[in-house]
Amino acid sequence: MPFELNSRIKGDTFFVGDLKLCRVLLMRDARFPWLSLVPRRADLTEIHDLSARERAILMEEASGAGEELKKLTAAKKINIGALGNIVPQLHVHVVARFEDDAAWPGPVWGCAGEPEAYAAEKLRSLLAGLRRGLDLSGEELLP
Amino acid sequence: MPFELNSRIKGDTFFVGDLKLCRVLLMRDARFPWLSLVPRRADLTEIHDLSARERAILMEEASGAGEELKKLTAAKKINIGALGNIVPQLHVHVVARFEDDAAWPGPVWGCAGEPEAYAAEKLRSLLAGLRRGLDLSGEELLP
Repeated sequence: MPFELNSRIKGDTFFVGDLKLCRVLLMRDARFPWLSLVPRRADLTEIHDLSARERAILMEEASGAGEELKKLTAAKKINIGALGNIVPQLHVHVVARFEDDAAWPGPVWGCAGEPEAYAAEKLRSLLAGLRRGLDLSGEELLP
Repeated sequence: MPFELNSRIKGDTFFVGDLKLCRVLLMRDARFPWLSLVPRRADLTEIHDLSARERAILMEEASGAGEELKKLTAAKKINIGALGNIVPQLHVHVVARFEDDAAWPGPVWGCAGEPEAYAAEKLRSLLAGLRRGLDLSGEELLP
């Protein structure tokens, strides 16, 4: 069965690019620079459902995305999480956090309040910085 | 500088055992079967501060702990997270989640309400199951 991105994740994000294992997406919420990394594998819900080799790649992709996001945004802290209580498709959040953000020091997951739309220029610049930093073309690879 | 466990993490947990990289701890909160894995490395705050080799070990230890915890507790979902907004020492949460738990479907981090004490027998049984499943002696290794 081929990989298909969960429709809720798709609706909540902008496409950034495809790494070796993961599709990299940016959440449509300007309050938090927030990536979602989705392994392009069908029907997985837990990290331990991946093979050890896939887990090692996932770790490097999530860690690299976090390092790049921290540099780009000058964040105080990176938060990384795999929850999946609401959307079952395996996905890993990588979020840049700031002491003055809307959820600090709590988690962004379950944070009260509404997502805020990105201004066009801020979005363009963040996507360009991410694609450059993560060496991504912005085109979808096959699964 | 030698590794020393953050005093807040120490006070909030029971010692389970030492894996190759991480100290495994159980949160003192019977509402959630909740492990904290702390790499025995001094002065790290981000996953990308570890070496690639240490990251690969951390991934296997966190994934294995999640798989074991899910089996032991028959949980619906495992949540894995590295936040560190409050306690800076790098640590990874591995939490067994249930549809009737006190925070579902939200995260346990920032969950309202007070921690609940473990009944002695439940604690003994969970620690024994974890040590058996993770092949841990319950004795501290050197850092």
